[in-house]
Amino acid sequence: MKLLRVGTAGAERPALLDAEGILRDLSGIVDDIDGALLADEGALGRVRAAAEAGELPALDAAGLRTGPPLGRIGKVVCIGLNYHDHARETGVEPPAEPVIFFKAADTVVGPHDTVLVPRGSAKTDWEVELAVVIGRTARYLESAEEGLAHVAGYAVAHDVSEREFQIERGGTWDKGKNCETFNPLGPWLVTAEEVPDPQRLSLKLWVNGELKQDGTTAEQIFPVGEVVRYVSQFMTLYPGDVINTGTPAGVAMGQPEPKPYLRAGDVVELEIDGLGRQRQELKDA
Amino acid sequence: MKLLRVGTAGAERPALLDAEGILRDLSGIVDDIDGALLADEGALGRVRAAAEAGELPALDAAGLRTGPPLGRIGKVVCIGLNYHDHARETGVEPPAEPVIFFKAADTVVGPHDTVLVPRGSAKTDWEVELAVVIGRTARYLESAEEGLAHVAGYAVAHDVSEREFQIERGGTWDKGKNCETFNPLGPWLVTAEEVPDPQRLSLKLWVNGELKQDGTTAEQIFPVGEVVRYVSQFMTLYPGDVINTGTPAGVAMGQPEPKPYLRAGDVVELEIDGLGRQRQELKDA
Repeated sequence: MKLLRVGTAGAERPALLDAEGILRDLSGIVDDIDGALLADEGALGRVRAAAEAGELPALDAAGLRTGPPLGRIGKVVCIGLNYHDHARETGVEPPAEPVIFFKAADTVVGPHDTVLVPRGSAKTDWEVELAVVIGRTARYLESAEEGLAHVAGYAVAHDVSEREFQIERGGTWDKGKNCETFNPLGPWLVTAEEVPDPQRLSLKLWVNGELKQDGTTAEQIFPVGEVVRYVSQFMTLYPGDVINTGTPAGVAMGQPEPKPYLRAGDVVELEIDGLGRQRQELKDA
Repeated sequence: MKLLRVGTAGAERPALLDAEGILRDLSGIVDDIDGALLADEGALGRVRAAAEAGELPALDAAGLRTGPPLGRIGKVVCIGLNYHDHARETGVEPPAEPVIFFKAADTVVGPHDTVLVPRGSAKTDWEVELAVVIGRTARYLESAEEGLAHVAGYAVAHDVSEREFQIERGGTWDKGKNCETFNPLGPWLVTAEEVPDPQRLSLKLWVNGELKQDGTTAEQIFPVGEVVRYVSQFMTLYPGDVINTGTPAGVAMGQPEPKPYLRAGDVVELEIDGLGRQRQELKDA
């Protein structure tokens, strides 16, 4: 299923994009698309049954904003340097074990919302990522298979990053990862049964129409199931938590000087196979 | 005011500790102690008026668990190496600007709840910290005075840390800061008017009755108002966000070998002037 949330920010209603591409209203049968729903097999089953029976009312998509496809997000765990090609372009050895950092859930915005270039920023960069949404509480998992079994679904994430804040201002990467609007998510949360192999997805990102990232999750150093298993050794993952699983090569930081960092007026588009497409215009904060 | 939340985890009710030390029920006039309440001057005024008028019913404290004094926490921003004496004991130069890392809000537990030593941990460490609770949205603040004006209140925080996970496992500090139960908070959220000078608070921490940390916020490299101003340049702070402002000297990591890291059965107690006292027993996860 392709689950989404439409409407004004903070007042989105749950919806489903059906097999014919028609937007269907879910607000009659579920409160929201959130961790509680994803952890509730019965409720998900009712959504699926209603969709298959054609019982869901159509929603007029005209003029409707698409919000992030997940409400009440707990935490956003991010994996750094998780693609062989991206590690090469940043000039570092592939990590021996996953690099973990955080984005605050309040950085998450809709897939087509404005992204703000922070004040004082000279190095705002793009990163297309496969986001994994957790559906079951994960604590000290023992295998990558178990890790995959705790994934409710997938989405496109834009892990917007300010490289000076991230790397040159002391402390951890978090300083450059948590600016307002720095995590567009969506358009859809695609449930896991529609993504039979998360290691065979192509990821693309364009800036002002020019293809900048053209990668595949086959290049991930630590695949999705292993990432979930690994993270669960250090923290408990709850339904509604998100893991951004890293970005492939092609970010601005990896380009020759002068590096083409983002500025107000730029347009970034992102796409992952089967997970939909995002488009953001940059503005000054 | 001393605000708190009592009851079983996830079902706490809001309460107030009055000037006579009597626990008063707030559930008749507010839903919860959370960011929405802290941002609502009117609601806070009604709580204060009801307390002063003696209109709040007493609560029988016997057998009641104390939860964290804040519900629906947004994010927990942490400041690293923010005390001159702690920087010295860890053998690093005082940072030129604040070091930022994160704890997930789901690590927050009550002040007397069990703290779990993570599986595979050999270096679980203690850190008493002054927690700052944000009461107004803070974005690109211009002065430390403005920073202080966005603080709703203060609490004791225990920034439990696994040093091997934090420092020796690749990536950022977050890996050793987000284990389950790693952020006891409370017992009280003391509103800002009761803390006229947050830079004159003594912080103490005992392990099995032995005093390990005996510091003062006068040693903070970046005082509270400046921390709030600084953080607001990199991310937006919302009502109900928490900042753990760093720990003074005396952590296990700073001791001679063999360093006395925490193990199941240890008891940690923490206290800050006027903000109350915590006590946790360690158990294995």
